[in-house]
Amino acid sequence: MGKFVLIPRPTIERLPIYLRSLTQLDENGVEVISSEELGRILGITSVQIRKDLSYFGEFGRRGVGYDVSELIQQITEILGVDCPNKLAIVGAGNLGQALARYEGFQEYGFILAAIFDSDPAKIGTEVAGQQVLAAEYIPEVVRSLGVKIGVITVPAAAAQEVATQLVSAGVRAIWNFAPVRIEAPPEVEVRQENLSVGLLALSYYIAQSG
Amino acid sequence: MGKFVLIPRPTIERLPIYLRSLTQLDENGVEVISSEELGRILGITSVQIRKDLSYFGEFGRRGVGYDVSELIQQITEILGVDCPNKLAIVGAGNLGQALARYEGFQEYGFILAAIFDSDPAKIGTEVAGQQVLAAEYIPEVVRSLGVKIGVITVPAAAAQEVATQLVSAGVRAIWNFAPVRIEAPPEVEVRQENLSVGLLALSYYIAQSG
Repeated sequence: MGKFVLIPRPTIERLPIYLRSLTQLDENGVEVISSEELGRILGITSVQIRKDLSYFGEFGRRGVGYDVSELIQQITEILGVDCPNKLAIVGAGNLGQALARYEGFQEYGFILAAIFDSDPAKIGTEVAGQQVLAAEYIPEVVRSLGVKIGVITVPAAAAQEVATQLVSAGVRAIWNFAPVRIEAPPEVEVRQENLSVGLLALSYYIAQSG
Repeated sequence: MGKFVLIPRPTIERLPIYLRSLTQLDENGVEVISSEELGRILGITSVQIRKDLSYFGEFGRRGVGYDVSELIQQITEILGVDCPNKLAIVGAGNLGQALARYEGFQEYGFILAAIFDSDPAKIGTEVAGQQVLAAEYIPEVVRSLGVKIGVITVPAAAAQEVATQLVSAGVRAIWNFAPVRIEAPPEVEVRQENLSVGLLALSYYIAQSG
């Protein structure tokens, strides 16, 4: 690895799904699995699975299948979760607190290094084992702790200012939940989360099924 | 419309993005837009945009572009957001409260009809203008209000029981945030939300860019 490979986003988003399923199989003592079997478990076609995994080289053996523990190790490395990733959350409202407490993150070695808010009523309270820090400490704390991922859960009006602070403090990626597009230099990856998309997809299915 | 069309999920998930951008263009007085212009605004290739919209028939005119207000109306109908959609949230913890207060939902006509919890400390408190109701009222309230979408934000251990109650109360779709796969009859669309996917995608980009 190491070289940047341009992989379609849907493929990247399926990797965690593969990883979770493979980890369960591994725990159940399964050593080898075919793309067909994995496909049946996940409801994804075996063609899609083979295509997704082909971006990363030749894992499977034709007619035999994938070595489960080898594949787990490869996907873990590809996703960069073989070593812990530190993140900081800015905005200790409901969403920020929900994310801070989300169990799924620890599963992949994400560590909540700090949580910030500008509301004096929230500063100093404890969320997920962390004291909420004043937003003015973002530059100092984020840099000194080596935080790589900034999570923005502040109102739209404050999002860009927070993003700018996070970028100057050295984060490599921003996960933005504020319903506004933020600007960042090209070397910082920005993921714009739009929670409405989930509801709209469901609304679509309801509308189509009459 | 009316007939069910099997459209790839990534296409469906781009429709809200098109809708948001087209609505802004419409507000700015833009009447016609080409797939190239829309692509530049959104950072999506014009080929992809034309392919996405082709599932729904012949909207654009070659060499002219798309009629903005017509396209807005079509996408609105396709997504089923031309009339209000009622939803109920089960689980009034941080995530449930964050979703109840999320402004983006109202934008598309989603209405929070009810919110439930089993914790006596939460029952009777107000969230987003709704009194939190005891979970035992799910069947009665969901059915009588005609709720179509159930949102599950309870711990994993309680998710299946809640899903079963929502299904028997007549919901058509379930949006599950609990980190566990739930079973529902085939006529009920289930969307399993995994918040880790966003972080893993960012972790991937950090790992790949060295």
